[in-house]
Amino acid sequence: MDRLRAGDIGERGLIELIWGLVDRQLLGEPAENPLPHPDDASALLLPGGRFLVLKTDMFVRRTDAPRGMRHYQMGRKSVVMCASDLAAKGAKPHAFMHSMGVPPSYPSGGVLDLVRGLLSACKEYGVAFLGGDLGESKDLVVAGFMVGFADRIVRRSGASPGDLLAVTGHFGETASALEILLKGRSAPPPLRRRLLRSVYQPRARVDLGVALAGTGAVTSSMDSSDGLAFTLHELARSSGVRFVIYKVPVSRAAEEFASIHGIPAEELALYGGEEYEFVLTIKPEAYDRAQAAAERCGNSLLPIGRVEEGRGVFLSDGTLERPIEAKGWEHLSCP
Amino acid sequence: MDRLRAGDIGERGLIELIWGLVDRQLLGEPAENPLPHPDDASALLLPGGRFLVLKTDMFVRRTDAPRGMRHYQMGRKSVVMCASDLAAKGAKPHAFMHSMGVPPSYPSGGVLDLVRGLLSACKEYGVAFLGGDLGESKDLVVAGFMVGFADRIVRRSGASPGDLLAVTGHFGETASALEILLKGRSAPPPLRRRLLRSVYQPRARVDLGVALAGTGAVTSSMDSSDGLAFTLHELARSSGVRFVIYKVPVSRAAEEFASIHGIPAEELALYGGEEYEFVLTIKPEAYDRAQAAAERCGNSLLPIGRVEEGRGVFLSDGTLERPIEAKGWEHLSCP
Repeated sequence: MDRLRAGDIGERGLIELIWGLVDRQLLGEPAENPLPHPDDASALLLPGGRFLVLKTDMFVRRTDAPRGMRHYQMGRKSVVMCASDLAAKGAKPHAFMHSMGVPPSYPSGGVLDLVRGLLSACKEYGVAFLGGDLGESKDLVVAGFMVGFADRIVRRSGASPGDLLAVTGHFGETASALEILLKGRSAPPPLRRRLLRSVYQPRARVDLGVALAGTGAVTSSMDSSDGLAFTLHELARSSGVRFVIYKVPVSRAAEEFASIHGIPAEELALYGGEEYEFVLTIKPEAYDRAQAAAERCGNSLLPIGRVEEGRGVFLSDGTLERPIEAKGWEHLSCP
Repeated sequence: MDRLRAGDIGERGLIELIWGLVDRQLLGEPAENPLPHPDDASALLLPGGRFLVLKTDMFVRRTDAPRGMRHYQMGRKSVVMCASDLAAKGAKPHAFMHSMGVPPSYPSGGVLDLVRGLLSACKEYGVAFLGGDLGESKDLVVAGFMVGFADRIVRRSGASPGDLLAVTGHFGETASALEILLKGRSAPPPLRRRLLRSVYQPRARVDLGVALAGTGAVTSSMDSSDGLAFTLHELARSSGVRFVIYKVPVSRAAEEFASIHGIPAEELALYGGEEYEFVLTIKPEAYDRAQAAAERCGNSLLPIGRVEEGRGVFLSDGTLERPIEAKGWEHLSCP
């Protein structure tokens, strides 16, 4: 096994092998370890009962920057990636650091623009910038580290049969944008601009995540950056339940793009990625309270299905159910 | 300026340009920002008066692993780098995360050995392992992120005239090891092994740093990973004082190596790097208390000089003083 190349095992396989090496002693007592692997962030219980929530995510220019993405946008995205995961767990982002690797031949203006973007996102989300480390590497690499605080955290694993399943937005724009960037598909200029904005300028729903967690109505939550289908599967699996979806939340722009090219819009919505919405399960009796909290943030929850006993994720048309595949983006996959 | 390559500006120059972009608002109130740039780690004041101390450091195989370093040792070092900086600030390391970039063609066994080393160091220092992110990059890259807690933190900037200057060990072994690895110099096998161990298996003086800070005797402190001379200059500059050194603390092994090759041992001790000792200034009336704390950790403080009014770092033979150059290792430097 050790002789295989990383790419033969893939990102998720390698992560599981790594966790297989971890001595449980290194995770602290269960009481101190409120967001265990494979949750989206980690947490430490502080004296007084608050949680420190921690997240790291790495942005590598060569693999993570879609063609045409500007340095400023890369910097913003490296903050968005962390902030979204913290907010999905109910934590208010507080401070950001980074380790950055830069090739010696890299234009310094690009590095500084990246930092300008990163600082702009920190300011937008009310996050203190603490600096970090700068070194030399072959790629432009930004490893972001964010910490936040939460009075109440939301795990991947809390969904129960009877809960409602909801999302915080519509999907399919990033997948459409990648069809434009990677496959050269066309779109009328205003549509093209809108779709490309989804990959170049993602936003984290920070206030919304914190407000929803604060209601106590949310039983499980995850950000959808790995793609809607994959996220649904992860939530269902972590909670040991079955999701029945009665409506795939497709964005209007993705529908328009899909109809131009005669491709299924639901596929774009389900099997994309890098969309920073939340997928949540909510106690039915508290749904209105969660919806009211979302509206106070200028958002709204879209109910898309229900939680049942069982396993897997299914799309129902009212009569027939068909399974939704657990596909999603994976790093380190050899074709 | 923006058109220059990163390597033309260098690591420290680029860091200063980055901090020039930072809006002071992004650093929080001064009261919340107890370890401002350019200190070795960052800190947040928690309710109740404790400090959360945070550090990130990036290990890139191509530039940071000396020839012959094993993956297990790389993993250990990526933990040591962070733990040493936290301890130099008086913080007890508590939890570690990493973002790791792996080339798809990289042998998975190497990645897993690196993780084994990293976990072994976490265990040794009593640090919880929280996992992190895994992605794809051209280099093997480990961005470590460590948080710790402190009741009292020690800055770079607290030295006053009259304080004593001390270190926690002898220097010059890593510089000697690099003479062997990079310049092909020879040494008898037992000496060679000892010198190479200094670069392959560095250790962080975690308990010692926490114990020294706990005495309240330490007025400023920094780990010596950037080299002894550079560290002395940074401490003196941050505190706005002058250091007079009356003894360069050269390790016996480095002296032996220097005498074999007819090179000045003091140069090896002053201008090396990656040695994880502490350089500290100590209130003279509390020196014995600090020494007793060090001895309880199985260490001892070596007094090497004194703090005076003025600027710069000087070596004194009792009569004459000569300046010590502010040389040290720098990433991203084009020759």
